[in-house]
Amino acid sequence: MAVPWLLARYRPAIEAELRSVLAGHSDGLYDMLRYHLGWCDEDGRPAARAAGKALRPALCLFACEALAGDFRPALPAAAAAELLHNASLIHDDIQDEDHQRRHRPTVWALWGKAQALNAGNALASLSALSLQRLGDLGVPAQRRLQVHQLLYDTCLRLVEGQWLDLSFEGRSNVTTSEYLAMAELKTAAPIACALQMGALVAGADGRTLEALGRAGRALGLAYQISDDLLGIYGDDAKTGKPVGSDIHRRKRSFVTVCALELAGGAARERLEQTLAGAANDPGQMGGIIALLDAAGARAWAVRQVQMYCEQAMAALHGAPIPTWAHDGLREVAGFLAQREA
Amino acid sequence: MAVPWLLARYRPAIEAELRSVLAGHSDGLYDMLRYHLGWCDEDGRPAARAAGKALRPALCLFACEALAGDFRPALPAAAAAELLHNASLIHDDIQDEDHQRRHRPTVWALWGKAQALNAGNALASLSALSLQRLGDLGVPAQRRLQVHQLLYDTCLRLVEGQWLDLSFEGRSNVTTSEYLAMAELKTAAPIACALQMGALVAGADGRTLEALGRAGRALGLAYQISDDLLGIYGDDAKTGKPVGSDIHRRKRSFVTVCALELAGGAARERLEQTLAGAANDPGQMGGIIALLDAAGARAWAVRQVQMYCEQAMAALHGAPIPTWAHDGLREVAGFLAQREA
Repeated sequence: MAVPWLLARYRPAIEAELRSVLAGHSDGLYDMLRYHLGWCDEDGRPAARAAGKALRPALCLFACEALAGDFRPALPAAAAAELLHNASLIHDDIQDEDHQRRHRPTVWALWGKAQALNAGNALASLSALSLQRLGDLGVPAQRRLQVHQLLYDTCLRLVEGQWLDLSFEGRSNVTTSEYLAMAELKTAAPIACALQMGALVAGADGRTLEALGRAGRALGLAYQISDDLLGIYGDDAKTGKPVGSDIHRRKRSFVTVCALELAGGAARERLEQTLAGAANDPGQMGGIIALLDAAGARAWAVRQVQMYCEQAMAALHGAPIPTWAHDGLREVAGFLAQREA
Repeated sequence: MAVPWLLARYRPAIEAELRSVLAGHSDGLYDMLRYHLGWCDEDGRPAARAAGKALRPALCLFACEALAGDFRPALPAAAAAELLHNASLIHDDIQDEDHQRRHRPTVWALWGKAQALNAGNALASLSALSLQRLGDLGVPAQRRLQVHQLLYDTCLRLVEGQWLDLSFEGRSNVTTSEYLAMAELKTAAPIACALQMGALVAGADGRTLEALGRAGRALGLAYQISDDLLGIYGDDAKTGKPVGSDIHRRKRSFVTVCALELAGGAARERLEQTLAGAANDPGQMGGIIALLDAAGARAWAVRQVQMYCEQAMAALHGAPIPTWAHDGLREVAGFLAQREA
């Protein structure tokens, strides 16, 4: 599936901004960061970028360009969004003990958990530091402070979401609304933040910020649910991480939470037992998928992705943006709903 | 040994500011933070504060009061310094697998490493968020941005120091200057940052900022070396953590690095072997202390603490501060050099 033009359009500028944030840092700590970002292999040799989607920074630049006609003043904020996201991925891989991401070993799998923790903290610090360049680009001090505040507030929500996510593990009575509250913190808040930082740089008013926040949160929920679908039904040759790993780790996902809610008494019990057993037996994946399908969970999750994408587009009507911007974001939403990785 | 009046003086105001930053947050994530800060026990029941020294926030308030006659505008920056410090302690305990801090189990020992990682990240986010109140206290936007920048620059240095510290483990050829470069990043930069944030809030000029930075870095090195001395010669009933744990973990400390540098050929080899052996045999502590003493490492380290304290006081002469401030900081320096915990 082709990458939407909106994501492709900003990619070179994002890459250049990210490289300028890391420029001048050269010891082993930064080798871990360059590795994680796909710029070098584990020995520090330059590598072709193992493309992440760079969704968050693209949304940040998109919001600024759609509102003010120029994306460049938002580049430091776009870098902040992408670096924060990658910081959380490095820590997430430690917490979940995931060995693979983007077709390569994770940072902790190569350098150990203690140093990977440092790598995540370094990216989080660089995320905040990258905002400094907003001053050089003429963004007024008060606006810059609002961007800082939004970024840190999002950091905290992200952690709250991670805390909830881990606290769900092993619990069989997690409701879909509990799950969505977690995803809103962990996934939707950072995506809303990206759009809103771009809007702040563009000098948007409160009503526009609010509209973009709503659009971002809906897009974020669509993203999380489609991620959970890929985690079960995806092709690991495309996603770059082993399919079914959430289930084997007894992590809750939207699909399993829905299935447990949708399934009746005996079916629910059988699913619970099978999910619990799968932690020790990867061979049960086929049986689990049959039970999820019987409960109608896959179809329901796919429908929810579409609904949140529609909500995102509807929320966007509250923002004074041109037609190309509506069209561009619709393409991104469609891509997120249909993506294979 | 009595707590210096400078540390005692600011304590209630710091405590109140920290509590206001955490106010309104109430789920299990925040219970971990309150526990770590000594405000409750592991079940969330209110507890007497397991007093940390609150050195960094006191230095921040001290700088502001010494330069501008009022410490209150710097309270949000003081809270930021203390929260960042505590974030790094929680992560540090995970990395070093330390089970005890301040006479109690560490956060990861109670809640596991994955959730403790979240606890550290939450405190780091709250550290940045606490700066928001500077605006309510009338600190101009440009000054506030400088404080943000300094805090985040310090976060990055702290991580660089942590990375170096871990990279020293198991290396027997670490030099004292490598060790001091690490301590400058990990310990001295955050202490300098605390003084400089207070000075920025007070509206200090560049020359004053530079002088306080130098004083803080020297004080920080004195602090780190005295910490390393306590780690070997301290009384664990007072320090609240097991003595000798650095040695058992094969961590480098200023004392062992000095001893290896000071000792001659055969003595050095014997010390290296004994240090390596101690990782598996805590009973060797007495033998190690004899070898460290024979090399003259303890006396040398004590002398270095005094020298850095004198450097700190000398640097302070570059700042336009009153006599009470000089006297107060001299007392703090003396306390750090002589402390037992």
